Amino acid sequence: MEQIPLETLNAADRKTFEAAVGEVMELAPWVADEAYAARPFASVTALYQAMTDAVRNATDARQRALIDGHPDLAGKAAREGKLTADSTAEQAGAGLDRLSEEESAAFHRLNDAYRTKFGMPFIVCVRRHGKESILREFERRLRNDAATERKTALSEIFRIAALRLDLRVKGSRRLKVHGHLSTHVLDIHGGHPAEGVAIELCEVAAGGATRAVKRAVTNADGRTDQPLFTAMPIPIATYELRFAVSDYFAGRRVPMSDPPFLGVVPVRFSVAEPEGRYHVPLSVSPWAYSTYRGS
Amino acid sequence: MEQIPLETLNAADRKTFEAAVGEVMELAPWVADEAYAARPFASVTALYQAMTDAVRNATDARQRALIDGHPDLAGKAAREGKLTADSTAEQAGAGLDRLSEEESAAFHRLNDAYRTKFGMPFIVCVRRHGKESILREFERRLRNDAATERKTALSEIFRIAALRLDLRVKGSRRLKVHGHLSTHVLDIHGGHPAEGVAIELCEVAAGGATRAVKRAVTNADGRTDQPLFTAMPIPIATYELRFAVSDYFAGRRVPMSDPPFLGVVPVRFSVAEPEGRYHVPLSVSPWAYSTYRGS
Amino acid sequence: MEQIPLETLNAADRKTFEAAVGEVMELAPWVADEAYAARPFASVTALYQAMTDAVRNATDARQRALIDGHPDLAGKAAREGKLTADSTAEQAGAGLDRLSEEESAAFHRLNDAYRTKFGMPFIVCVRRHGKESILREFERRLRNDAATERKTALSEIFRIAALRLDLRVKGSRRLKVHGHLSTHVLDIHGGHPAEGVAIELCEVAAGGATRAVKRAVTNADGRTDQPLFTAMPIPIATYELRFAVSDYFAGRRVPMSDPPFLGVVPVRFSVAEPEGRYHVPLSVSPWAYSTYRGS
Amino acid sequence: MEQIPLETLNAADRKTFEAAVGEVMELAPWVADEAYAARPFASVTALYQAMTDAVRNATDARQRALIDGHPDLAGKAAREGKLTADSTAEQAGAGLDRLSEEESAAFHRLNDAYRTKFGMPFIVCVRRHGKESILREFERRLRNDAATERKTALSEIFRIAALRLDLRVKGSRRLKVHGHLSTHVLDIHGGHPAEGVAIELCEVAAGGATRAVKRAVTNADGRTDQPLFTAMPIPIATYELRFAVSDYFAGRRVPMSDPPFLGVVPVRFSVAEPEGRYHVPLSVSPWAYSTYRGS
Repeated sequence: MEQIPLETLNAADRKTFEAAVGEVMELAPWVADEAYAARPFASVTALYQAMTDAVRNATDARQRALIDGHPDLAGKAAREGKLTADSTAEQAGAGLDRLSEEESAAFHRLNDAYRTKFGMPFIVCVRRHGKESILREFERRLRNDAATERKTALSEIFRIAALRLDLRVKGSRRLKVHGHLSTHVLDIHGGHPAEGVAIELCEVAAGGATRAVKRAVTNADGRTDQPLFTAMPIPIATYELRFAVSDYFAGRRVPMSDPPFLGVVPVRFSVAEPEGRYHVPLSVSPWAYSTYRGS
Repeated sequence: MEQIPLETLNAADRKTFEAAVGEVMELAPWVADEAYAARPFASVTALYQAMTDAVRNATDARQRALIDGHPDLAGKAAREGKLTADSTAEQAGAGLDRLSEEESAAFHRLNDAYRTKFGMPFIVCVRRHGKESILREFERRLRNDAATERKTALSEIFRIAALRLDLRVKGSRRLKVHGHLSTHVLDIHGGHPAEGVAIELCEVAAGGATRAVKRAVTNADGRTDQPLFTAMPIPIATYELRFAVSDYFAGRRVPMSDPPFLGVVPVRFSVAEPEGRYHVPLSVSPWAYSTYRGS
Repeated sequence: MEQIPLETLNAADRKTFEAAVGEVMELAPWVADEAYAARPFASVTALYQAMTDAVRNATDARQRALIDGHPDLAGKAAREGKLTADSTAEQAGAGLDRLSEEESAAFHRLNDAYRTKFGMPFIVCVRRHGKESILREFERRLRNDAATERKTALSEIFRIAALRLDLRVKGSRRLKVHGHLSTHVLDIHGGHPAEGVAIELCEVAAGGATRAVKRAVTNADGRTDQPLFTAMPIPIATYELRFAVSDYFAGRRVPMSDPPFLGVVPVRFSVAEPEGRYHVPLSVSPWAYSTYRGS
Repeated sequence: MEQIPLETLNAADRKTFEAAVGEVMELAPWVADEAYAARPFASVTALYQAMTDAVRNATDARQRALIDGHPDLAGKAAREGKLTADSTAEQAGAGLDRLSEEESAAFHRLNDAYRTKFGMPFIVCVRRHGKESILREFERRLRNDAATERKTALSEIFRIAALRLDLRVKGSRRLKVHGHLSTHVLDIHGGHPAEGVAIELCEVAAGGATRAVKRAVTNADGRTDQPLFTAMPIPIATYELRFAVSDYFAGRRVPMSDPPFLGVVPVRFSVAEPEGRYHVPLSVSPWAYSTYRGS
């Protein structure tokens, strides 16, 4: 999606404005329409504020309709390909388009239970969660009362909107929707950054199954050229960073046992704050390593 | 198997002696018979020396027969349940009794290739290897010449014999056939050994599949009551020690994120010396850890 | 001082008994005399118990006399060489026989202040403290009330007695008066214990001045042949362990910068529990190290 | 010294030019004079190149005079206050203006020996060395032959010139004369950067005496607001970074022993490359720490 500069948006007519940001609130173009009156916006954050204010100040019925306009997660609309483009991308990003039968049944059961208890769809900003975190949220929120869930639904809608806006509009004071995950490999055998270490970032499911999320190789500074996560929230999940340590040392002709004591070093950690800063470095010799949550 | 004291063996008649150690060399009771003449033995090592000397000093034909008396690994005799009790236990210990079809085919192919090239069965002391290490040995040794393999076959037979003797006879100067694997968990948040940490030792296959080998919980000294390996060789393989770190800190009410940054910490390492000493400790806080090959 | 076996003591006549342990309580042979009646003692701990019970059950006047029989620390009697042999050795062990003028004045001032406030000498088991710790105790205890100090004086007298007994009598169930300080050096460049590392243990004064307490060289297991402290309390003080790391790596021809990044590695720590167990190891490459309080 | 922009220098008349950079080569304004002809300079590096080329292309007599124009280190001219302003600042920076008698004698002896052997003064860029490193260089270079020392004298003169130029002229492509020393403190007890840790950087003399070079306190990111060295070479010497760890943890009410196991943590290291990048971080809990040469 090409981003539109905020200045362009500020100068746009109503129709262009709505075309640009009308889908930021799911099936509720009226929100953009109301925000239009508040132009010009000094920053993307100001635009976001105007749109969420429009919702906050709306009648109960309109708020209710906004909530009801959201699709079930991994629900019928999804299976039939009837989601909005945004929702399709968001649900796919969390892997909801490739559930096992068992997982599918779990979502079905939870969607029903939630609708039965609260009379509205379960809304969560799925870009901030891995699949298992969504299921945990589902279980957790099912225990809430109606008033709490009504509030939570709106705040999750605002989180979804923030991410959609961030994708569409560029300008000053970006919304704080981005997490940061980086690593660094220090060779404490040689006393310098480790260059050329192959790294794999995997997401780890509860049963231990892993799915590769990203691959990279360290540069001369021992870092990856790009952070492992930077332009998006980091989904709440468990990850494993895998460092191909013996390949690196073998390439430098460092004596090792056969097979090497350390081959691929796995560092397993969980992300709790999708917008947080996670630096997970490795200091390593062929016989020892340490890691920590840095900053 | 109940162990017989060396003194008892030294005082035994020929028949009792052969009943006790006649199966130490596969299908070759004559080896024990020859060793009988050398009684009394000052130590288990001396008995081992007498038996291996008997083989070294035997005619080529007898050596040849000893070698040929060994079964294929995961071969026809194994499938038909026709192995000696020792061979059955040894092959099962390395998991050769539960191969996948693909693995089974690999063993079949390699057994054939080895017999074709060298005219004898492939002999390896399987208690010193994980399944994948056996396959690597197979491939590696197929590239040797006949003279090298003839020597290797005998030295592997002696390794098998040493382990069988060690199981059967107790006495001074035990044979050096035992590896040692231990761990220790230090809580660097609280400044003391970590008591009550659940630990799992897994063997890791090349594809990443893991199989639990042992479970334990750390005691007040941060150690397991028994070493993870002590009375046997440690099979050459890749292992993963998994430390249930967040459960431990949660039990001590240490503040953590939700989910905790460190949940189960995996430490992956390979054993290259089955009779070696491996100490793999963990120093850990909820946010950092280090490990190394200690002693 | 040659130790007398407990059995010998149990069989001794009154005179021999008093000669052996009469000086355990400063200038109060009556304590040993009373304990004599309770023979035989099952253990050194039982003998200690009998002697301290004799004090606990004594009249107030006798307790008072026992307390008053103790000399000032670094006081007039010490300067004039009029201390008992035990007190002389104890005060010298803590360095009270070689005070600077300033320190001397501090002790003088504190002795006077303590006597003025409490009407008795300041008693502390000096073997459990470095010089600065004694001064800190002095200041701290001056703020107590009389009843607390009377109790504290007796409990310090019992600590002194325990150490004196431990030096004089050998037998089962030794008194728990011994601390333990040990180290270990692991070479994480080579992956094995570091053999031949020169180690110096220094006591560090507040101003930073250091005094060598012990020197040792690591053995093949990376440890010192003897623990750095083992048969005595470890005086409460700040210590520095200094590891000659670059000499070690140079001896193994490991490439380093010139001068080496790490030359002598100082690890500075304080002991708070004289009878505690302190293990302070070093894992080190030419470019990195870590240490911790182990067990 | 206020820096003059390179453009200004490029546009300056001969007299102004010489006033600005005539003292870059000690007592040899002719070097600047010759370089003047090569204006304009695209960068500071180009100006440096022009000046050093002028020396390289000069007659042997002129080179010789340039060398002879340099003062002894801690010599008669220094004692009598007859050094140029640059030399005065440089020698003071290395502590040569406050030598002990013993050190003074050493310099005297070495100056004489050097002059006797080579017939010229000993020239070294003292800003790149601590006092002890200068003495080591003296001893080392005394063993060279005359041709080597003649070359070395010129290359040290060029290093001195580079630093003098860097102080005087600002412009693009700065000369690579700057080292970098930084630190970072990570609290692995709490899992975040350690804010408010008092840090002292000391230079350590061979006998162990230390001299504070810099003090700083870590900011919210666990770093010092300014690197510990950045605008100058880091003198070749041994340093100690001291981290007031117990004060930090006490301020956060983290339970510790009394006295704390870790009070002030000293990290001792040597700098071998004055223009190098040294990052020396500390990961620390009240019971454990690690450090390394990072980047």
